Amino acid sequence: MIGAGAVGGYVGARLAQHGHDVHFLARSDYAQLKSRGFSIRSVAGDFTLAPDRFHVYDDTANMPQVDLVIVALKSTHNPLLPNLLPLLLRSDTTILTLQNGLGNEQFLADHFGASRIVGGIVFACINRVGPGRIDDQYRGFIRLGEFAAAGRSERAEQLVALFNASNIKASLVEDLRAGRWDKQVWNVPFNGLSALLDATTDLLIADQDGERVVRAIMEEVISAARADGVDLKKTPDPLKKGSGVFFDVAGEKLEATRVMGAYVTSTQLDRRQRKPMEVEAIFGQPVHIARRNNLHLPLLELLYFSLKRLDVAKVL
Amino acid sequence: MIGAGAVGGYVGARLAQHGHDVHFLARSDYAQLKSRGFSIRSVAGDFTLAPDRFHVYDDTANMPQVDLVIVALKSTHNPLLPNLLPLLLRSDTTILTLQNGLGNEQFLADHFGASRIVGGIVFACINRVGPGRIDDQYRGFIRLGEFAAAGRSERAEQLVALFNASNIKASLVEDLRAGRWDKQVWNVPFNGLSALLDATTDLLIADQDGERVVRAIMEEVISAARADGVDLKKTPDPLKKGSGVFFDVAGEKLEATRVMGAYVTSTQLDRRQRKPMEVEAIFGQPVHIARRNNLHLPLLELLYFSLKRLDVAKVL
Repeated sequence: MIGAGAVGGYVGARLAQHGHDVHFLARSDYAQLKSRGFSIRSVAGDFTLAPDRFHVYDDTANMPQVDLVIVALKSTHNPLLPNLLPLLLRSDTTILTLQNGLGNEQFLADHFGASRIVGGIVFACINRVGPGRIDDQYRGFIRLGEFAAAGRSERAEQLVALFNASNIKASLVEDLRAGRWDKQVWNVPFNGLSALLDATTDLLIADQDGERVVRAIMEEVISAARADGVDLKKTPDPLKKGSGVFFDVAGEKLEATRVMGAYVTSTQLDRRQRKPMEVEAIFGQPVHIARRNNLHLPLLELLYFSLKRLDVAKVL
Repeated sequence: MIGAGAVGGYVGARLAQHGHDVHFLARSDYAQLKSRGFSIRSVAGDFTLAPDRFHVYDDTANMPQVDLVIVALKSTHNPLLPNLLPLLLRSDTTILTLQNGLGNEQFLADHFGASRIVGGIVFACINRVGPGRIDDQYRGFIRLGEFAAAGRSERAEQLVALFNASNIKASLVEDLRAGRWDKQVWNVPFNGLSALLDATTDLLIADQDGERVVRAIMEEVISAARADGVDLKKTPDPLKKGSGVFFDVAGEKLEATRVMGAYVTSTQLDRRQRKPMEVEAIFGQPVHIARRNNLHLPLLELLYFSLKRLDVAKVL
């Protein structure tokens, strides 16, 4: 497990809790994890994990080769991966990325070969509240799919089974790219505007003016996806009501957001904590893809430029 | 002179300096102006104005009826005007507004009659650095024109002459509405983004991504103007190079902005000082006009929504 923050810590601890041999690479929390382990509050059941139930390292040089590498670093740290991962890989090691946004699978594929790569799209609300202390407030789930080719695979199904057997709800996504774009339809407007305005999601759709803006951004993401060969409005998806043709992707996501209440997105939290925001993975990638397809998406361009600026300036 | 802030103080003091009988309505600076008068640093010549050279009031009930009312309040205070102005007006009193944005002349016309109203478009960089202390850093100018009907008028020409004779550079604008929209082409992107990102104008056009966003916002303002019956690209204007048909309005303004350096817009300054931003006059009006004309302008909608939100939240 590369990264022992919110998602990496939670998922890794659940796997270890269920008897798997988990090796964490940790940075800031290394000493604390080694001495005290994990303490996790979760809607799926609170638990602690003593230090003798897992391995933790501050350097991949000391880690063994493994069956499965799970990447749970923020995408802003991707440049570290080409140095971190090689010592962990056998020829048949799978790399699963649980990161946000677009381009992470491609990045890993470019460095380690596309056939190794599985993507996991995380729908969750997990916070690291201190070293080794994690809060899981929402009954989340992970959608897992192959990067190199759409469709079902034995490997992805084994990973789905592994997660579900470890009290982590998971399901197969046959078209990982479509799944990633679908999540972007939510992340771009809500992560973007919430960070720009330091406003929780409820405030962004509290009036018609806000809802119009959110919906217009969603439509731009849907256009970018279409330019990238993914027609979200035609994607049949068993997780969605009314799946099939001419699906109202934006409307369904707005409806789902209304029941979430005053949600603080990860990008808003990054800005508040003056940490790097995932600007490239969430906002830059769709803009670059659109431009390569001669598509001008003014709202995405504005969000991308603005968040780059705020990321540098740390205004807040 | 209704308002003795930066523009009101500077223009009123210049008029008084040149022998005109000027009556100021002041609020926060009343006591200071009454006891110490004005102290002005200006590229057009520094000067002081002793308290016996002008009149100052904290209540319009004590003010006389006048030939000319000049409105130099922030547009966010417009709701006060219907109560402030009636006692100052004779049947032939002219009202000149030097305010920013769109809709101020219409607001005054609705309350006091369109035939009284003259608009003044201020191009300046004047700051109030303390009570009665004003800094005028740029050789600015004012463009004056009739509200009720385009074209030249004796009254507007007299006002131009009055200002020029008082060391305030002024010229006639035959089409006031076109002049206001032309200024909006600059104000909407630069005031908007500078306030949103707390970034000076130079940072907004320092790279291609920023320039693309600024230019796209400008094109939306030009579209809104066209929907409002003003074709800026065909407006012949003696102040512009290459005036005539198919003028590159956005390109000319970008070029002019490059030489301004690290300029702090009034809206950025308002946000920094946690004062109300002129959201409706600069951003709301063009959005409402566009919507009435069934025109969807996504960037203007985003700026309008975002600045309303920040104005309420005072995040910075």
